[in-house]
Amino acid sequence: MRIGTLAIVGVGLIGGSIGLAAKRRGVAARVVGVGRRAESLEQSRRLGIIDEAHLQLADAARTADVMIFCTPVQTIAAQVVEAAHHCRPETLLTDAGSAKRAILAELDGRLPASVRFVGCHPLAGSEKRGPEHADADLFEGRLTILTPGPRTDPKAVEQVAAFWKAFGSSVRIMTAEEHDRALALTSHLPHLLASALAGSLPADWFELTATGFRDTTRIAAGDPALWTGIFLQNKQELLAALERLSGRLHGFREALAAGDEAALMDLLQQAKRVRDALGS
Amino acid sequence: MRIGTLAIVGVGLIGGSIGLAAKRRGVAARVVGVGRRAESLEQSRRLGIIDEAHLQLADAARTADVMIFCTPVQTIAAQVVEAAHHCRPETLLTDAGSAKRAILAELDGRLPASVRFVGCHPLAGSEKRGPEHADADLFEGRLTILTPGPRTDPKAVEQVAAFWKAFGSSVRIMTAEEHDRALALTSHLPHLLASALAGSLPADWFELTATGFRDTTRIAAGDPALWTGIFLQNKQELLAALERLSGRLHGFREALAAGDEAALMDLLQQAKRVRDALGS
Repeated sequence: MRIGTLAIVGVGLIGGSIGLAAKRRGVAARVVGVGRRAESLEQSRRLGIIDEAHLQLADAARTADVMIFCTPVQTIAAQVVEAAHHCRPETLLTDAGSAKRAILAELDGRLPASVRFVGCHPLAGSEKRGPEHADADLFEGRLTILTPGPRTDPKAVEQVAAFWKAFGSSVRIMTAEEHDRALALTSHLPHLLASALAGSLPADWFELTATGFRDTTRIAAGDPALWTGIFLQNKQELLAALERLSGRLHGFREALAAGDEAALMDLLQQAKRVRDALGS
Repeated sequence: MRIGTLAIVGVGLIGGSIGLAAKRRGVAARVVGVGRRAESLEQSRRLGIIDEAHLQLADAARTADVMIFCTPVQTIAAQVVEAAHHCRPETLLTDAGSAKRAILAELDGRLPASVRFVGCHPLAGSEKRGPEHADADLFEGRLTILTPGPRTDPKAVEQVAAFWKAFGSSVRIMTAEEHDRALALTSHLPHLLASALAGSLPADWFELTATGFRDTTRIAAGDPALWTGIFLQNKQELLAALERLSGRLHGFREALAAGDEAALMDLLQQAKRVRDALGS
């Protein structure tokens, strides 16, 4: 994979890591960053993440061979549509949004025939924000999910797969619906739970927390606006995941109320088997 | 604090760390380990955690100046009673159990007047088990809660406080009831939640998890038997903590179902403030 000009829209933790990885691994000859704040883009330039900065999406779109949108999920589709009207034919558009179905639905029928879009989601991240936390190896050994639709150009899917593989990520193709159903449970629900738990803690018990509470709630430090957007874009599947979890919490509650040692052991053992299988 | 003979009953992660810390920091002249498995005690001896091993509690009790019980919570009270009948007058007994009220209730009126017991809980640990993970600095910078009763000898409380401080821990005195109410939320509920979440994950979604899911469920890898014991010893308070959390989950569910962006933002922002205040 060798790109002439890569445009990164939204140079935060994910976008910044893509920029660093693209430059360090020679994936792109030139990396252009698009954002709303000149100071933040200038910081990214100083950090070696981008070569050039644009405040206007159209300016970046005109010269890009590949554009990747790393902005909050609820803004991606509109930006893709805008960029599509300014970019050259054959430009490849992709994204890194955490929920996929709503984006594809919003794009449906709104892109010029010459423009190719493949939705993506790299399963990598952190509760940290901003280009100052960008990491060229963020995608190394991780998985990126590609969610092409039935009419997506197979060549574009191959190119996007090669793009992520160049960063050390493996790739898996799923439908946007499958992605959203799974990620509701594997990513969005954990965030909701961590936040519900952290939010339940009275201030005078702060010092009574240890590593268990801290690990379990770590991601609750993530950006509230970002996660509000993700939750709302994947509302139905997240509600379904919460329902699934509530069933299991009910099982714990019943076993506990009944003092049923064997049932509690079963529940905890099954959870341990899953957690052990995931590794550290 | 300088102890002649310290006896550690249950030489696992916590007991082992106490042994290592006591020897490295010169807190005890001699450390004796008590356990059920000779091989495990021999391993602890080789690791420099204990000087001497006993399979019989009574044998260790006869020579100990301080005895600390680091066994599963549901077994502590009976072991304390047994040891109390073999130890010398003025021997100081303490423990490291994660739930306190049930132990104190079980001990009530069953200890000889000459024997002093002070319940303790060091807020330190790991999902790992066994003396091979013992760490002499496990208590450094942590908090240990002491839960003396109204009739506990104040001198014994001072001695136990000095014991934990010698390991770098700070100490806080609470009633057993206060402890159990707080720890239900800060420790037992996180374990239940992490386990409920891990247990909800179908095998074909294992590879769709990233750091968020892994952090949030890390403690679900803990020992099921150990945690079943803790849950049952603190059943009422854990049920109350679960109720409190359910209320908050309900708030998330309502906000999500209504697509109420402002309410979701509020919930996530409040959680972030708490989590940020806890530090890493």
